[in-house]
Amino acid sequence: MRVLILGGDGYLGWPTAMAFSRKGHEVCVVDNYLRRNMCRDFDVDPLYPLPNLLERAKIWQAVSNKGIQVSIGDCCDYEFLREIVRSFSPDTVIHYAEQPSAPYSMLNYKAAKLTLSNNIESTFNIIWAVREHAPNCHIVKLGTMGEYGTPNIDIEEGWIDIEHNGRRDTFLYPRQASSLYHTTKVQDTDLLWFYVRTWGLRVTDLMQGPVYGLETEETKQDERLATIFNYDELFGTVVNRFVVQAVVGYPLTVYGKGGQIRGYLNIRDTIACVELAMLHPAAKGELKIYNQVTETFSVNELAEKVARVGQQRGHQVEVKSIENPRVEKEEHYYNPTYTGLKDLGLQPHFLTDEVLHGMFEVVERHKDNIHEHMIFRGVKW
Amino acid sequence: MRVLILGGDGYLGWPTAMAFSRKGHEVCVVDNYLRRNMCRDFDVDPLYPLPNLLERAKIWQAVSNKGIQVSIGDCCDYEFLREIVRSFSPDTVIHYAEQPSAPYSMLNYKAAKLTLSNNIESTFNIIWAVREHAPNCHIVKLGTMGEYGTPNIDIEEGWIDIEHNGRRDTFLYPRQASSLYHTTKVQDTDLLWFYVRTWGLRVTDLMQGPVYGLETEETKQDERLATIFNYDELFGTVVNRFVVQAVVGYPLTVYGKGGQIRGYLNIRDTIACVELAMLHPAAKGELKIYNQVTETFSVNELAEKVARVGQQRGHQVEVKSIENPRVEKEEHYYNPTYTGLKDLGLQPHFLTDEVLHGMFEVVERHKDNIHEHMIFRGVKW
Repeated sequence: MRVLILGGDGYLGWPTAMAFSRKGHEVCVVDNYLRRNMCRDFDVDPLYPLPNLLERAKIWQAVSNKGIQVSIGDCCDYEFLREIVRSFSPDTVIHYAEQPSAPYSMLNYKAAKLTLSNNIESTFNIIWAVREHAPNCHIVKLGTMGEYGTPNIDIEEGWIDIEHNGRRDTFLYPRQASSLYHTTKVQDTDLLWFYVRTWGLRVTDLMQGPVYGLETEETKQDERLATIFNYDELFGTVVNRFVVQAVVGYPLTVYGKGGQIRGYLNIRDTIACVELAMLHPAAKGELKIYNQVTETFSVNELAEKVARVGQQRGHQVEVKSIENPRVEKEEHYYNPTYTGLKDLGLQPHFLTDEVLHGMFEVVERHKDNIHEHMIFRGVKW
Repeated sequence: MRVLILGGDGYLGWPTAMAFSRKGHEVCVVDNYLRRNMCRDFDVDPLYPLPNLLERAKIWQAVSNKGIQVSIGDCCDYEFLREIVRSFSPDTVIHYAEQPSAPYSMLNYKAAKLTLSNNIESTFNIIWAVREHAPNCHIVKLGTMGEYGTPNIDIEEGWIDIEHNGRRDTFLYPRQASSLYHTTKVQDTDLLWFYVRTWGLRVTDLMQGPVYGLETEETKQDERLATIFNYDELFGTVVNRFVVQAVVGYPLTVYGKGGQIRGYLNIRDTIACVELAMLHPAAKGELKIYNQVTETFSVNELAEKVARVGQQRGHQVEVKSIENPRVEKEEHYYNPTYTGLKDLGLQPHFLTDEVLHGMFEVVERHKDNIHEHMIFRGVKW
């Protein structure tokens, strides 16, 4: 297949590009380095330096003997994006091209506005470019489980049947997100669902939980092929951050009571899920939605797991509860369904002690790069 | 009260400003003439020429001996908007500052993009400006009944209790709009509801149906105080358009089967509803939602009413069904609740023959200004 990966320089985008290239797909990656620029602006370096995207593609070519086409530009620039879609003529567009940080989106007006504009306009432009130049193309959009929030009823996969006053209809499952970032994803869903109904687009929305992990089959082939790995409060996801904090003896910071439950998955499973979605495209006029997680944990459970494995490896690990800087429920019901991707064949990699030991090994190799002042930024909302 | 009316030059904004000024409120209106500029760009003149907003305020001052403060600028310009909010320090902000046309939003990429950016960014800026400079201020936002679409279950006022697998929770009533314009209003709701929960804002969202009518107590005092009245497919609402079409013998155009049912209201009732909302503000952290309609009709019923009254006045009126240019249901269930505003005291003006005769009288006076080529634009989606 011809696969266009938007946001192809990111934590998930680059490993996806290599994985699909290795399997024989023709891959084009697009990125404007928004994430790298934000990291530099906020003085939050990744755990190790990274070649730029053109260099990454050259290294991949040398290692795998397979090419990845690279285009540097902004998906919010419609003339740029439509020309890529017209000339590359993808069978699948994978849309990772969003500002991905909830804390960043809550920093101040400027960061919030960037998140709002970037995420909604990139999605809008992708819809229009596909409609104009590749109307049969399947859009695979990365959504987030955070769109659902923490409702007091079971979370279904995207849709819910409602019976009301003796009549029935099916609706998008109610969304009520807990950061501006997550709210922009809800707004993306509104846009996609409207244009799917109206123009008969093919779209799959993957409601993903927080991802953890550093390695995939492809990143392991050359250390210069590693994916971007942040351990700061802005861009690091919670398991990744906790492992780094454990390695340098920085207390694992639990917000409030720590009863916040979310669904998580391994970075290898993200790639597998996106591939499964790509290989089972939505029909014309269909919005398929999958909940992309493999297991659920409370923050307390995550801290306990990371602390235990860290201690086994000789680290001094403290778990410290701090006053919750966020407006969120600290104890709540949480029961999401996530069978759709397993039904398509997903073989989950769970968060076992072995997996955590593997993460610790990599982080320990880079211990000298860890700057403690980058871990905590004190973002409040 | 100190009332800031954003979009104060528009069809609803200007009559609202005069009505509230007459009642002794201190009124400031803001507008960037977006609607006037779009009308000029698309060669769709209003039924009669209008003084600009500063002139209107001067005429109002002469007629009523009351002042209306005017500020010309764009609510998408945050520095401009925050300075207005800071210096005027409103008790209530009324947010009409949106691109209001569904057909316009479906014209092409540029029009769709303008609608998306203008509506979401104006709402976003209002939220931030109020939070920064008037955190106790009540935001009254004009939403639309079109956010709900045409579900197969009863439409409640904004919220719905869902029982699912033996558990219950309350959610925003599901939204599924049928144009990009209406979808941007859904996205506005997402933003408002998120920031209400997170920052404790006070917001009332008025889910309004299509408005008809030309006159209010205040517009009748001087013909130069009339509100903007469009009769074209882009900016004219359906009852207003039908009356103009009847006067010039242009067939009343019914899309498809004409069974599309919507809730409607008189422009006088819009002003009364907005005032009731203002006088019964939401509490901190509350999003109040009212369905702002007074009765429901199918397009066939509206055409039949206008045709009958037109014929009584000696016009030759033909009703013509054309192939539906829109993606929408032509026959559907439609049962909205709209008791909240009546409970607050709304005394509806219904679409009686007398009301229609009154509309015909005004339009007939301006018959020579009607340009038939402006009526139909052939917008499809």
